[in-house]
Amino acid sequence: MSRGSRKLVELFYDVVSPYSWLGFEVLRRYTDVWNINLKLRPAFLGGVYKGSGNRSPDNVPSKYLYMRTDLARLSAYFDVPMASPADPCNVIEKGSLVAMRFLTAVAERELGGDCRLEQISRELWMRIWSRDQDISQLASLSEAGLKLGLPGSEVEELVKLATSQSVKDKLKATTEEAVQYGAFGFPLIVCHVNGRPEIFFGSDRFELMAHCIGEKWMGPQPNKLFRCFAKIPSHRHNQTFTYRNLAMTM
Amino acid sequence: MSRGSRKLVELFYDVVSPYSWLGFEVLRRYTDVWNINLKLRPAFLGGVYKGSGNRSPDNVPSKYLYMRTDLARLSAYFDVPMASPADPCNVIEKGSLVAMRFLTAVAERELGGDCRLEQISRELWMRIWSRDQDISQLASLSEAGLKLGLPGSEVEELVKLATSQSVKDKLKATTEEAVQYGAFGFPLIVCHVNGRPEIFFGSDRFELMAHCIGEKWMGPQPNKLFRCFAKIPSHRHNQTFTYRNLAMTM
Repeated sequence: MSRGSRKLVELFYDVVSPYSWLGFEVLRRYTDVWNINLKLRPAFLGGVYKGSGNRSPDNVPSKYLYMRTDLARLSAYFDVPMASPADPCNVIEKGSLVAMRFLTAVAERELGGDCRLEQISRELWMRIWSRDQDISQLASLSEAGLKLGLPGSEVEELVKLATSQSVKDKLKATTEEAVQYGAFGFPLIVCHVNGRPEIFFGSDRFELMAHCIGEKWMGPQPNKLFRCFAKIPSHRHNQTFTYRNLAMTM
Repeated sequence: MSRGSRKLVELFYDVVSPYSWLGFEVLRRYTDVWNINLKLRPAFLGGVYKGSGNRSPDNVPSKYLYMRTDLARLSAYFDVPMASPADPCNVIEKGSLVAMRFLTAVAERELGGDCRLEQISRELWMRIWSRDQDISQLASLSEAGLKLGLPGSEVEELVKLATSQSVKDKLKATTEEAVQYGAFGFPLIVCHVNGRPEIFFGSDRFELMAHCIGEKWMGPQPNKLFRCFAKIPSHRHNQTFTYRNLAMTM
Protein backbone atom coordinates (compact mmCIF):
# COMPACT_ATOMS: atom_id res chain seq x y z
CA MET A 1 0.00 0.00 0.00
CA SER A 2 1.40 3.38 -0.90
CA ARG A 3 2.41 5.83 1.82
CA GLY A 4 -0.13 8.30 0.45
CA SER A 5 -3.09 6.16 1.44
CA ARG A 6 -2.10 6.10 5.10
CA LYS A 7 -4.38 7.93 7.49
CA LEU A 8 -2.95 10.93 9.29
CA VAL A 9 -3.09 10.66 13.08
CA GLU A 10 -1.96 13.67 15.10
CA LEU A 11 -0.88 13.34 18.70
CA PHE A 12 -1.04 16.55 20.73
CA TYR A 13 0.97 16.04 23.92
CA ASP A 14 2.98 17.57 26.71
CA VAL A 15 5.74 15.67 28.51
CA VAL A 16 4.39 16.79 31.88
CA SER A 17 1.41 14.48 31.18
CA PRO A 18 2.11 10.81 32.00
CA TYR A 19 -1.04 9.66 30.18
CA SER A 20 0.41 11.34 27.08
CA TRP A 21 3.46 9.12 27.43
CA LEU A 22 1.26 6.01 27.35
CA GLY A 23 -0.57 7.29 24.27
CA PHE A 24 2.72 8.18 22.59
CA GLU A 25 4.27 4.74 23.10
CA VAL A 26 1.15 2.91 21.97
CA LEU A 27 0.82 4.99 18.80
CA ARG A 28 4.53 4.56 18.04
CA ARG A 29 4.12 0.78 18.37
CA TYR A 30 1.08 0.83 16.09
CA THR A 31 2.73 3.00 13.44
CA ASP A 32 4.33 -0.22 12.18
CA VAL A 33 1.10 -2.20 12.55
CA TRP A 34 -1.67 0.15 11.43
CA ASN A 35 -1.77 2.01 8.15
CA ILE A 36 -1.20 5.43 9.69
CA ASN A 37 1.13 8.40 9.52
CA LEU A 38 1.72 9.54 13.08
CA LYS A 39 2.39 13.24 13.41
CA LEU A 40 3.78 14.36 16.77
CA ARG A 41 2.42 17.73 17.89
CA PRO A 42 4.21 19.04 21.00
CA ALA A 43 1.94 21.54 22.77
CA PHE A 44 1.56 23.17 26.18
CA LEU A 45 -0.83 21.60 28.68
CA GLY A 46 -0.96 24.73 30.84
CA GLY A 47 -2.27 26.63 27.81
CA VAL A 48 -4.90 23.97 27.19
CA TYR A 49 -6.13 24.19 30.80
CA LYS A 50 -6.27 27.96 30.48
CA GLY A 51 -7.97 27.88 27.09
CA SER A 52 -10.59 25.31 28.10
CA GLY A 53 -11.22 26.39 31.70
CA ASN A 54 -10.14 22.97 32.94
CA ARG A 55 -7.73 22.40 35.83
CA SER A 56 -5.04 19.91 36.68
CA PRO A 57 -6.17 16.68 38.44
CA ASP A 58 -3.87 17.47 41.37
CA ASN A 59 -6.48 20.04 42.45
CA VAL A 60 -8.62 17.15 43.68
CA PRO A 61 -6.66 15.11 46.27
CA SER A 62 -8.57 11.84 45.80
CA LYS A 63 -8.33 12.11 42.00
CA TYR A 64 -4.62 12.67 42.34
CA LEU A 65 -4.23 9.65 44.66
CA TYR A 66 -6.24 7.47 42.30
CA MET A 67 -4.11 8.65 39.39
CA ARG A 68 -1.01 7.32 41.10
CA THR A 69 -2.52 3.85 41.45
CA ASP A 70 -3.97 4.00 37.96
CA LEU A 71 -0.62 4.97 36.43
CA ALA A 72 1.18 2.22 38.31
CA ARG A 73 -1.25 -0.35 36.93
CA LEU A 74 -1.16 1.12 33.42
CA SER A 75 2.62 1.41 33.27
CA ALA A 76 2.84 -2.34 33.87
CA TYR A 77 0.01 -3.10 31.44
CA PHE A 78 1.46 -0.83 28.73
CA ASP A 79 5.05 -1.82 29.56
CA VAL A 80 6.16 1.77 29.94
CA PRO A 81 8.71 2.09 32.77
CA MET A 82 7.10 4.76 34.92
CA ALA A 83 8.08 5.63 38.45
CA SER A 84 6.34 8.31 40.44
CA PRO A 85 8.56 11.32 41.14
CA ALA A 86 9.25 11.87 44.85
CA ASP A 87 7.15 15.04 44.69
CA PRO A 88 4.82 14.99 41.65
CA CYS A 89 3.19 18.26 42.72
CA ASN A 90 6.56 19.94 42.48
CA VAL A 91 6.98 18.57 38.93
CA ILE A 92 3.61 19.95 37.94
CA GLU A 93 4.27 23.29 39.61
CA LYS A 94 7.63 23.73 37.88
CA GLY A 95 5.75 23.19 34.66
CA SER A 96 6.77 22.26 31.16
CA LEU A 97 6.81 25.51 29.22
CA VAL A 98 10.59 25.55 28.71
CA ALA A 99 10.62 21.83 27.83
CA MET A 100 7.80 22.15 25.31
CA ARG A 101 9.52 25.14 23.68
CA PHE A 102 12.66 23.02 23.44
CA LEU A 103 10.69 20.21 21.76
CA THR A 104 9.09 22.75 19.43
CA ALA A 105 12.60 23.86 18.47
CA VAL A 106 13.57 20.22 17.88
CA ALA A 107 10.51 19.81 15.63
CA GLU A 108 11.44 22.96 13.70
CA ARG A 109 14.89 21.57 12.95
CA GLU A 110 13.73 18.10 11.79
CA LEU A 111 14.47 17.35 8.16
CA GLY A 112 11.41 15.25 7.32
CA GLY A 113 9.93 12.78 9.79
CA ASP A 114 10.10 13.30 13.51
CA CYS A 115 12.70 10.80 14.61
CA ARG A 116 14.60 13.23 16.81
CA LEU A 117 11.44 14.71 18.25
CA GLU A 118 10.35 11.21 19.20
CA GLN A 119 13.65 10.36 20.89
CA ILE A 120 13.96 13.61 22.82
CA SER A 121 10.28 13.56 23.87
CA ARG A 122 10.77 10.05 25.27
CA GLU A 123 13.97 11.09 27.01
CA LEU A 124 12.12 13.97 28.69
CA TRP A 125 9.30 11.64 29.81
CA MET A 126 11.97 9.31 31.15
CA ARG A 127 13.52 12.21 33.03
CA ILE A 128 10.30 13.22 34.82
CA TRP A 129 8.20 10.08 35.01
CA SER A 130 10.90 7.45 35.34
CA ARG A 131 14.10 8.95 36.79
CA ASP A 132 12.71 11.92 38.73
CA GLN A 133 14.97 14.43 37.01
CA ASP A 134 14.34 18.06 36.20
CA ILE A 135 13.05 19.29 32.83
CA SER A 136 12.37 22.90 33.76
CA GLN A 137 15.90 24.23 33.20
CA LEU A 138 17.61 24.71 29.84
CA ALA A 139 20.64 22.88 31.27
CA SER A 140 18.45 19.81 31.85
CA LEU A 141 17.25 19.91 28.26
CA SER A 142 20.83 20.25 26.97
CA GLU A 143 21.74 17.23 29.05
CA ALA A 144 18.92 15.26 27.43
CA GLY A 145 20.09 16.24 23.94
CA LEU A 146 23.73 15.36 24.68
CA LYS A 147 22.71 12.03 26.21
CA LEU A 148 21.05 11.10 22.93
CA GLY A 149 24.29 11.82 21.08
CA LEU A 150 23.52 15.19 19.54
CA PRO A 151 26.63 17.29 18.91
CA GLY A 152 27.21 20.07 21.48
CA SER A 153 26.93 22.79 18.83
CA GLU A 154 23.56 21.48 17.73
CA VAL A 155 22.24 21.29 21.28
CA GLU A 156 23.41 24.85 21.84
CA GLU A 157 21.58 25.98 18.73
CA LEU A 158 18.38 24.18 19.85
CA VAL A 159 18.54 25.85 23.26
CA LYS A 160 18.94 29.23 21.59
CA LEU A 161 16.09 28.52 19.20
CA ALA A 162 13.89 27.38 22.13
CA THR A 163 13.99 30.89 23.57
CA SER A 164 13.26 32.63 20.25
CA GLN A 165 10.02 34.45 19.56
CA SER A 166 9.27 32.28 16.53
CA VAL A 167 9.36 29.10 18.61
CA LYS A 168 7.28 30.67 21.38
CA ASP A 169 4.72 31.67 18.75
CA LYS A 170 4.80 28.22 17.16
CA LEU A 171 4.11 26.46 20.49
CA LYS A 172 1.30 28.89 21.21
CA ALA A 173 -0.23 28.25 17.77
CA THR A 174 -0.07 24.45 18.20
CA THR A 175 -1.65 24.72 21.65
CA GLU A 176 -4.42 26.91 20.25
CA GLU A 177 -4.98 24.38 17.48
CA ALA A 178 -5.46 21.67 20.13
CA VAL A 179 -7.95 23.88 21.99
CA GLN A 180 -9.79 24.45 18.70
CA TYR A 181 -10.05 20.68 18.31
CA GLY A 182 -11.75 20.62 21.71
CA ALA A 183 -8.80 19.78 23.98
CA PHE A 184 -9.31 20.12 27.73
CA GLY A 185 -6.31 17.91 28.60
CA PHE A 186 -3.72 15.66 26.94
CA PRO A 187 -3.17 13.43 25.12
CA LEU A 188 -5.50 14.59 22.38
CA ILE A 189 -5.47 12.32 19.35
CA VAL A 190 -6.89 13.59 16.07
CA CYS A 191 -7.53 10.95 13.40
CA HIS A 192 -8.21 12.33 9.95
CA VAL A 193 -10.79 10.03 8.38
CA ASN A 194 -12.45 10.86 5.07
CA GLY A 195 -11.44 14.48 5.42
CA ARG A 196 -12.96 14.79 8.87
CA PRO A 197 -11.17 15.00 12.23
CA GLU A 198 -12.18 12.32 14.74
CA ILE A 199 -11.11 13.36 18.21
CA PHE A 200 -10.08 11.07 21.07
CA PHE A 201 -8.98 12.21 24.50
CA GLY A 202 -6.78 10.11 26.77
CA SER A 203 -5.07 6.76 26.46
CA ASP A 204 -8.08 4.50 26.94
CA ARG A 205 -10.03 4.72 23.70
CA PHE A 206 -7.69 2.85 21.37
CA GLU A 207 -10.20 0.12 20.61
CA LEU A 208 -12.77 2.67 19.44
CA MET A 209 -10.07 4.57 17.58
CA ALA A 210 -8.95 1.41 15.77
CA HIS A 211 -12.49 0.85 14.56
CA CYS A 212 -12.76 4.48 13.51
CA ILE A 213 -9.70 4.24 11.25
CA GLY A 214 -10.53 0.75 9.98
CA GLU A 215 -7.85 -1.07 11.97
CA LYS A 216 -7.74 -3.65 14.71
CA TRP A 217 -6.76 -3.14 18.35
CA MET A 218 -4.45 -5.83 19.68
CA GLY A 219 -3.71 -4.41 23.11
CA PRO A 220 -0.98 -1.98 24.12
CA GLN A 221 1.84 -4.28 22.97
CA PRO A 222 0.89 -5.47 19.50
CA ASN A 223 4.29 -6.91 18.72
CA LYS A 224 4.85 -9.07 21.76
CA LEU A 225 3.11 -11.06 24.41
CA PHE A 226 2.27 -9.25 27.62
CA ARG A 227 5.13 -9.83 29.98
CA CYS A 228 4.38 -7.45 32.78
CA PHE A 229 0.91 -8.38 33.89
CA ALA A 230 2.16 -10.25 36.95
CA LYS A 231 3.79 -7.03 38.07
CA ILE A 232 0.64 -4.95 38.13
CA PRO A 233 0.58 -3.50 41.61
CA SER A 234 -2.21 -3.29 44.09
CA HIS A 235 -4.11 -0.21 45.01
CA ARG A 236 -2.14 1.55 47.73
CA HIS A 237 -3.15 5.03 48.66
CA ASN A 238 -0.35 5.53 51.10
CA GLN A 239 2.48 4.17 49.03
CA THR A 240 4.36 5.59 46.09
CA PHE A 241 4.86 3.23 43.19
CA THR A 242 8.26 2.41 41.84
CA TYR A 243 9.14 0.68 38.64
CA ARG A 244 12.85 1.23 38.74
CA ASN A 245 13.29 -2.52 38.48
CA LEU A 246 11.27 -2.74 35.26
CA ALA A 247 13.38 -3.40 32.19
CA MET A 248 13.65 -0.41 29.90
CA THR A 249 12.33 -2.02 26.79
CA MET A 250 11.33 0.89 24.63
CA MET B 1 -17.43 -23.68 42.41
CA SER B 2 -19.35 -22.71 45.50
CA ARG B 3 -21.01 -19.35 45.79
CA GLY B 4 -18.83 -18.63 48.81
CA SER B 5 -15.66 -18.53 46.75
CA ARG B 6 -16.93 -15.78 44.48
CA LYS B 7 -15.20 -12.42 44.76
CA LEU B 8 -17.26 -9.52 46.01
CA VAL B 9 -17.42 -6.59 43.57
CA GLU B 10 -19.21 -3.46 44.73
CA LEU B 11 -20.54 -0.92 42.24
CA PHE B 12 -21.10 2.57 43.67
CA TYR B 13 -23.26 4.50 41.22
CA ASP B 14 -25.74 7.28 40.65
CA VAL B 15 -28.29 7.19 37.82
CA VAL B 16 -27.43 10.76 36.86
CA SER B 17 -24.07 9.40 35.67
CA PRO B 18 -24.20 7.85 32.18
CA TYR B 19 -20.76 6.28 32.59
CA SER B 20 -22.19 4.49 35.63
CA TRP B 21 -24.83 2.99 33.37
CA LEU B 22 -22.15 1.54 31.11
CA GLY B 23 -20.30 0.09 34.10
CA PHE B 24 -23.53 -1.31 35.51
CA GLU B 25 -24.50 -3.12 32.30
CA VAL B 26 -21.03 -4.53 31.76
CA LEU B 27 -20.78 -5.85 35.32
CA ARG B 28 -24.27 -7.34 35.09
CA ARG B 29 -23.26 -9.15 31.91
CA TYR B 30 -20.08 -10.44 33.54
CA THR B 31 -21.85 -11.63 36.70
CA ASP B 32 -22.77 -14.73 34.69
CA VAL B 33 -19.30 -15.00 33.16
CA TRP B 34 -16.89 -14.11 35.96
CA ASN B 35 -16.82 -15.70 39.38
CA ILE B 36 -18.09 -12.60 41.19
CA ASN B 37 -20.85 -11.46 43.48
CA LEU B 38 -21.93 -8.04 42.26
CA LYS B 39 -23.24 -5.79 44.99
CA LEU B 40 -25.10 -2.69 43.80
CA ARG B 41 -24.42 0.36 45.98
CA PRO B 42 -26.70 3.29 45.06
CA ALA B 43 -25.04 6.52 46.23
CA PHE B 44 -25.26 10.27 45.58
CA LEU B 45 -22.87 11.80 43.05
CA GLY B 46 -23.46 15.34 44.35
CA GLY B 47 -22.23 14.21 47.76
CA VAL B 48 -19.14 12.64 46.20
CA TYR B 49 -18.30 15.88 44.38
CA LYS B 50 -18.77 17.79 47.61
CA GLY B 51 -16.79 15.28 49.68
CA SER B 52 -13.87 15.10 47.26
CA GLY B 53 -13.77 18.72 46.07
CA ASN B 54 -14.35 17.60 42.50
CA ARG B 55 -16.86 19.18 40.13
CA SER B 56 -19.15 18.01 37.38
CA PRO B 57 -17.65 17.80 33.85
CA ASP B 58 -20.30 20.19 32.57
CA ASN B 59 -18.28 22.97 34.24
CA VAL B 60 -15.80 22.70 31.37
CA PRO B 61 -17.57 23.29 28.04
CA SER B 62 -15.12 21.40 25.85
CA LYS B 63 -15.08 18.44 28.26
CA TYR B 64 -18.84 18.40 28.18
CA LEU B 65 -18.90 18.48 24.38
CA TYR B 66 -16.36 15.69 24.18
CA MET B 67 -18.38 13.65 26.65
CA ARG B 68 -21.36 13.74 24.31
CA THR B 69 -19.31 12.32 21.43
CA ASP B 70 -17.59 9.84 23.73
CA LEU B 71 -20.92 8.59 25.11
CA ALA B 72 -22.38 8.23 21.64
CA ARG B 73 -19.43 6.09 20.59
CA LEU B 74 -19.46 4.07 23.81
CA SER B 75 -23.21 3.47 23.81
CA ALA B 76 -22.85 1.78 20.42
CA TYR B 77 -19.73 -0.13 21.47
CA PHE B 78 -21.29 -1.27 24.76
CA ASP B 79 -24.71 -1.78 23.17
CA VAL B 80 -26.47 0.39 25.75
CA PRO B 81 -29.27 2.40 24.13
CA MET B 82 -28.34 5.92 25.16
CA ALA B 83 -29.76 9.09 23.72
CA SER B 84 -28.69 12.51 24.86
CA PRO B 85 -31.45 14.41 26.69
CA ALA B 86 -32.54 17.59 24.91
CA ASP B 87 -31.01 19.61 27.73
CA PRO B 88 -28.45 17.53 29.67
CA CYS B 89 -27.50 20.54 31.82
CA ASN B 90 -31.09 20.70 33.02
CA VAL B 91 -30.93 17.00 33.95
CA ILE B 92 -27.76 17.57 35.95
CA GLU B 93 -29.16 20.70 37.61
CA LYS B 94 -32.36 18.97 38.66
CA GLY B 95 -30.13 16.39 40.30
CA SER B 96 -30.65 12.86 41.49
CA LEU B 97 -31.06 13.14 45.25
CA VAL B 98 -34.74 12.10 45.25
CA ALA B 99 -34.06 9.28 42.77
CA MET B 100 -31.13 7.90 44.74
CA ARG B 101 -33.16 8.01 47.96
CA PHE B 102 -35.87 6.07 46.13
CA LEU B 103 -33.32 3.46 45.00
CA THR B 104 -31.98 3.29 48.55
CA ALA B 105 -35.52 2.55 49.71
CA VAL B 106 -35.81 -0.16 47.02
CA ALA B 107 -32.53 -1.68 48.28
CA GLU B 108 -33.80 -1.59 51.88
CA ARG B 109 -36.88 -3.58 50.87
CA GLU B 110 -35.07 -6.29 48.87
CA LEU B 111 -35.36 -9.76 50.34
CA GLY B 112 -31.92 -11.07 49.42
CA GLY B 113 -30.24 -10.27 46.10
CA ASP B 114 -30.83 -7.00 44.30
CA CYS B 115 -33.05 -7.97 41.43
CA ARG B 116 -35.53 -5.14 41.93
CA LEU B 117 -32.80 -2.62 42.56
CA GLU B 118 -31.24 -3.65 39.27
CA GLN B 119 -34.48 -3.34 37.32
CA ILE B 120 -35.49 0.00 38.78
CA SER B 121 -31.99 1.45 38.44
CA ARG B 122 -31.97 0.51 34.76
CA GLU B 123 -35.44 1.96 34.28
CA LEU B 124 -34.28 5.27 35.80
CA TRP B 125 -31.23 5.33 33.52
CA MET B 126 -33.58 4.62 30.60
CA ARG B 127 -35.73 7.53 31.71
CA ILE B 128 -32.91 10.09 31.76
CA TRP B 129 -30.34 8.82 29.31
CA SER B 130 -32.57 7.14 26.75
CA ARG B 131 -36.10 8.60 26.81
CA ASP B 132 -35.41 12.09 28.21
CA GLN B 133 -37.90 11.75 31.06
CA ASP B 134 -37.82 13.26 34.51
CA ILE B 135 -36.45 11.45 37.58
CA SER B 136 -36.50 14.37 40.01
CA GLN B 137 -40.14 14.06 41.12
CA LEU B 138 -41.59 11.33 43.31
CA ALA B 139 -44.39 10.92 40.75
CA SER B 140 -41.78 10.02 38.11
CA LEU B 141 -40.30 7.39 40.40
CA SER B 142 -43.74 5.93 41.12
CA GLU B 143 -44.31 5.74 37.37
CA ALA B 144 -41.06 3.81 36.98
CA GLY B 145 -42.08 1.34 39.70
CA LEU B 146 -45.55 0.82 38.26
CA LYS B 147 -44.12 0.33 34.77
CA LEU B 148 -42.03 -2.55 36.09
CA GLY B 149 -45.17 -4.20 37.46
CA LEU B 150 -44.85 -3.40 41.15
CA PRO B 151 -48.22 -3.24 42.94
CA GLY B 152 -49.48 0.30 43.64
CA SER B 153 -49.42 -0.25 47.41
CA GLU B 154 -45.80 -1.31 47.28
CA VAL B 155 -44.79 1.68 45.16
CA GLU B 156 -46.59 3.95 47.60
CA GLU B 157 -44.69 2.40 50.48
CA LEU B 158 -41.36 2.84 48.66
CA VAL B 159 -42.12 6.51 47.99
CA LYS B 160 -42.94 7.01 51.65
CA LEU B 161 -39.79 5.17 52.72
CA ALA B 162 -37.71 7.26 50.30
CA THR B 163 -38.53 10.40 52.28
CA SER B 164 -37.82 8.84 55.68
CA GLN B 165 -34.86 9.86 57.83
CA SER B 166 -33.50 6.34 57.92
CA VAL B 167 -33.23 6.18 54.12
CA LYS B 168 -31.71 9.67 53.95
CA ASP B 169 -29.12 8.55 56.51
CA LYS B 170 -28.48 5.30 54.66
CA LEU B 171 -27.81 7.11 51.35
CA LYS B 172 -25.52 9.54 53.13
CA ALA B 173 -23.61 6.67 54.75
CA THR B 174 -23.17 4.83 51.44
CA THR B 175 -21.97 8.04 49.77
CA GLU B 176 -19.50 8.63 52.59
CA GLU B 177 -18.28 5.06 52.23
CA ALA B 178 -17.58 5.74 48.54
CA VAL B 179 -15.68 8.91 49.45
CA GLN B 180 -13.67 6.90 51.99
CA TYR B 181 -12.74 4.49 49.20
CA GLY B 182 -11.37 7.50 47.31
CA ALA B 183 -14.33 8.33 45.05
CA PHE B 184 -14.22 11.64 43.17
CA GLY B 185 -16.84 10.58 40.63
CA PHE B 186 -18.85 7.53 39.55
CA PRO B 187 -18.86 4.69 38.78
CA LEU B 188 -16.52 3.54 41.53
CA ILE B 189 -15.90 -0.20 41.46
CA VAL B 190 -14.43 -1.87 44.53
CA CYS B 191 -13.13 -5.41 44.02
CA HIS B 192 -12.39 -7.29 47.21
CA VAL B 193 -9.34 -9.43 46.51
CA ASN B 194 -7.56 -11.35 49.26
CA GLY B 195 -9.19 -9.19 51.89
CA ARG B 196 -8.05 -5.96 50.24
CA PRO B 197 -10.15 -3.45 48.28
CA GLU B 198 -8.91 -2.78 44.75
CA ILE B 199 -10.44 0.45 43.45
CA PHE B 200 -11.32 1.28 39.85
CA PHE B 201 -12.89 4.50 38.66
CA GLY B 202 -14.88 4.77 35.45
CA SER B 203 -15.98 2.32 32.77
CA ASP B 204 -12.68 1.93 30.94
CA ARG B 205 -10.51 -0.21 33.20
CA PHE B 206 -12.29 -3.55 32.85
CA GLU B 207 -9.29 -5.29 31.30
CA LEU B 208 -7.10 -4.35 34.26
CA MET B 209 -9.92 -5.22 36.66
CA ALA B 210 -10.32 -8.66 35.07
CA HIS B 211 -6.64 -9.36 35.64
CA CYS B 212 -6.90 -8.10 39.20
CA ILE B 213 -9.67 -10.58 40.07
CA GLY B 214 -8.16 -13.44 38.07
CA GLU B 215 -10.65 -13.33 35.21
CA LYS B 216 -10.55 -12.59 31.48
CA TRP B 217 -11.91 -9.54 29.69
CA MET B 218 -13.83 -10.38 26.54
CA GLY B 219 -15.10 -6.95 25.60
CA PRO B 220 -18.29 -5.22 26.74
CA GLN B 221 -20.57 -7.92 25.32
CA PRO B 222 -19.13 -11.24 26.47
CA ASN B 223 -22.14 -13.28 25.46
CA LYS B 224 -22.59 -12.14 21.90
CA LEU B 225 -20.78 -10.84 18.88
CA PHE B 226 -20.52 -7.09 18.55
CA ARG B 227 -23.42 -5.96 16.46
CA CYS B 228 -23.32 -2.23 16.81
CA PHE B 229 -19.86 -1.27 15.70
CA ALA B 230 -21.07 -0.06 12.32
CA LYS B 231 -23.30 2.39 14.11
CA ILE B 232 -20.57 4.17 16.03
CA PRO B 233 -21.08 7.81 15.17
CA SER B 234 -18.60 10.42 14.13
CA HIS B 235 -17.36 13.24 16.24
CA ARG B 236 -19.82 16.10 15.84
CA HIS B 237 -19.56 18.99 18.19
CA ASN B 238 -22.68 20.69 16.99
CA GLN B 239 -24.98 17.75 16.82
CA THR B 240 -26.77 15.84 19.54
CA PHE B 241 -26.59 12.08 19.28
CA THR B 242 -29.66 9.94 19.12
CA TYR B 243 -29.92 6.22 19.55
CA ARG B 244 -33.67 5.95 19.69
CA ASN B 245 -33.48 3.52 16.79
CA LEU B 246 -31.15 1.17 18.61
CA ALA B 247 -32.81 -2.03 19.72
CA MET B 248 -33.36 -2.22 23.47
CA THR B 249 -31.48 -5.41 24.03
CA MET B 250 -30.69 -5.32 27.69
